Amino acid sequence: MIYNEKDVFFIKKTIGLAKKAKGFTSPNPMVGAVIVKNGKIISKGYHKRAGLPHAEIEAIRKITPRDIKGATLYINLEPCFHFGQTPPCVDEIIKNKFQKVVVSTVDPNPEVKGKSIKKLRKAGIEVIIGILEKEARQLNEHFFKNKETNSPFIAAKTAQSLDGKIASSIGSSKWITEKKTRDYAKSLRDTYDCILVGINTVINDNPHLDGLTKIPVKVVIDPKFRIPLDSNLTNKHPEKLIIFTSCKDKNLDNFLPFSGRIQPNLEISLRNNNSSLLVKAGLEKWHKIISRGAKIFFLKEESRGLSAKKIAHILYDLGLMSIFIEGGAETIGRFFDEQLVDKVYTFIAPKIIGGKYALASVGGLGIKEVSDAPYLKEVMVKKLGQDILISGYTGI
Amino acid sequence: MIYNEKDVFFIKKTIGLAKKAKGFTSPNPMVGAVIVKNGKIISKGYHKRAGLPHAEIEAIRKITPRDIKGATLYINLEPCFHFGQTPPCVDEIIKNKFQKVVVSTVDPNPEVKGKSIKKLRKAGIEVIIGILEKEARQLNEHFFKNKETNSPFIAAKTAQSLDGKIASSIGSSKWITEKKTRDYAKSLRDTYDCILVGINTVINDNPHLDGLTKIPVKVVIDPKFRIPLDSNLTNKHPEKLIIFTSCKDKNLDNFLPFSGRIQPNLEISLRNNNSSLLVKAGLEKWHKIISRGAKIFFLKEESRGLSAKKIAHILYDLGLMSIFIEGGAETIGRFFDEQLVDKVYTFIAPKIIGGKYALASVGGLGIKEVSDAPYLKEVMVKKLGQDILISGYTGI
Repeated sequence: MIYNEKDVFFIKKTIGLAKKAKGFTSPNPMVGAVIVKNGKIISKGYHKRAGLPHAEIEAIRKITPRDIKGATLYINLEPCFHFGQTPPCVDEIIKNKFQKVVVSTVDPNPEVKGKSIKKLRKAGIEVIIGILEKEARQLNEHFFKNKETNSPFIAAKTAQSLDGKIASSIGSSKWITEKKTRDYAKSLRDTYDCILVGINTVINDNPHLDGLTKIPVKVVIDPKFRIPLDSNLTNKHPEKLIIFTSCKDKNLDNFLPFSGRIQPNLEISLRNNNSSLLVKAGLEKWHKIISRGAKIFFLKEESRGLSAKKIAHILYDLGLMSIFIEGGAETIGRFFDEQLVDKVYTFIAPKIIGGKYALASVGGLGIKEVSDAPYLKEVMVKKLGQDILISGYTGI
Repeated sequence: MIYNEKDVFFIKKTIGLAKKAKGFTSPNPMVGAVIVKNGKIISKGYHKRAGLPHAEIEAIRKITPRDIKGATLYINLEPCFHFGQTPPCVDEIIKNKFQKVVVSTVDPNPEVKGKSIKKLRKAGIEVIIGILEKEARQLNEHFFKNKETNSPFIAAKTAQSLDGKIASSIGSSKWITEKKTRDYAKSLRDTYDCILVGINTVINDNPHLDGLTKIPVKVVIDPKFRIPLDSNLTNKHPEKLIIFTSCKDKNLDNFLPFSGRIQPNLEISLRNNNSSLLVKAGLEKWHKIISRGAKIFFLKEESRGLSAKKIAHILYDLGLMSIFIEGGAETIGRFFDEQLVDKVYTFIAPKIIGGKYALASVGGLGIKEVSDAPYLKEVMVKKLGQDILISGYTGI
């Protein structure tokens, strides 16, 4: 289908507006709206944060119903149909007598998914859909993944040498890329709901895992509960910390989440599962960390450790719609092995570290036949100072 | 210094002409020459192959001395001063009464190095030097390395996944990059004097190591002389094969080269070095391989195997001015460890192989502190189909 050049132009505007709230709308999508009359933009708006008005409402409120009559609304996502934290936008659009609505993508949310478009058409409003659909989907790639699969959008980030190393043979790893590149990586953290690492990364690097402008939720996979009480993660913003650990007990339920205060019967309930020894060892440390505001989840130990899939789903149930995995090699490898990674960000410093015993960026089991390793899709290559960022999608 | 725009234009022409012989001039440099009179090119030439006329002679021969009188000669390298396979070009230029000579770079050959320029000036010819010097040096990077350090120019090539793997955990390695990319890599072989691999690559992959248009000299580092008699390298063009092996004998001289026929006293001379056992085991296989035309060099085994530096120097003494190392990881790692690599070609297929036990592209000892790993210089990023080539210079 060939679209009207003007429609493409205004949809581009909505995407630009939507991006202004990048990193602030989760679990909602980023949406921008533009109202056009006689070829001119007469109002615009974007969704600033979950709980605040939707983009089209922002735009509508700035002008009068008389202005709107006969106007066209441009919006990158189908208007909402359901009562959420705000009333349905579709009714507001009909009430305001728009002549035409141009939408980039249908809302993947099963509660909407074309219903609003149908309702608008039924009300006699012309609706055009599909303009810059690919760009609009990519803009809200987290949201589309969430709604289409009921699971979080997961990205894996590595910072490596040209030969794929993240640490030398003696474990030296600071710094492989330039400061500017590391800041860029921090700005990516700002666009994800949580940052996930394995316990070895915490012990070896003692990271903050902060974004450039935000303090994200930080997740540590720590089967043996080795997290140091004096680490940055347990001391700076511990209320943002989530730890996944294990009781190595086959009888344990799928997971026992603890947060806030430890229930008085905790020790007993775990004793019932024959874990008394572990409880004795761990209880004091759990208590200290939980009392600082962190959350601890207990997962059954499986043959290869804690299940990445279960961890992803628990985080999703907690409302964390996107996960940014930063390492180490085994943690990233585990997520690849379980085919959970949606997007890859590989920062390459064009230098050679070498070494048979140096640490490569992606561990785990790996793919057996190289012919089975699929090419990433939509690969982007970007120069950042002396470094190079290669990113792409696994297409899972 | 600011150069005349026309001079830059014509020097660019000489570089373009020189490149026509890429891969054919070794051990000589690539040189192009352009003769200009009244702002117009009246003749041009380039050095086609060692033994054939130099570029300026090619250009001079096409026209008459009357044409040349008062003309300007453009050339990317200082004309030769010495009798080699051809008489000195500098005398020919003076004899032909050029008015002006524009040269990009001084010849790094100690036998020339400015002497020709001096002689031209003494003969009253105006000489301009230094235009597009960087480009002209890069064009003949092998030659400059050779003449300035008396050693070969060495490049390391890998074809790896985004996470730096050249084989999966079960050793699967075919194919990581696309056919088009592999053909591009073959075309690079055409520009090097020899292709070098370790014995494991021969045993695992049984490669031909041929170029896209040429059959290069192939070098195998094979300390235990495990090369199969039915391998492609020992059967297809074995006269192009050079093997470095070891006698594991501390008393052995630096190396004993054998080529063509085995000398009748070989067994005895090695017996003298207390290597009788090894000789008995190896003699028949050596004989078979040598009789096919291959060369075998014996090197003393050092603490970490055969010395890459010694191998490089032996190849240089054999007239092989540039070495293209294709693997495997340990062979490449060894050349990096000994700081012998000048240029790196990393072909990246943007896909993830993963695996703790998968093979990374550069082995060896590696660099200890990552802060000691220098950035490559003049880094180039090139998209080749779905793959990406990152190349650069170590600046050693």
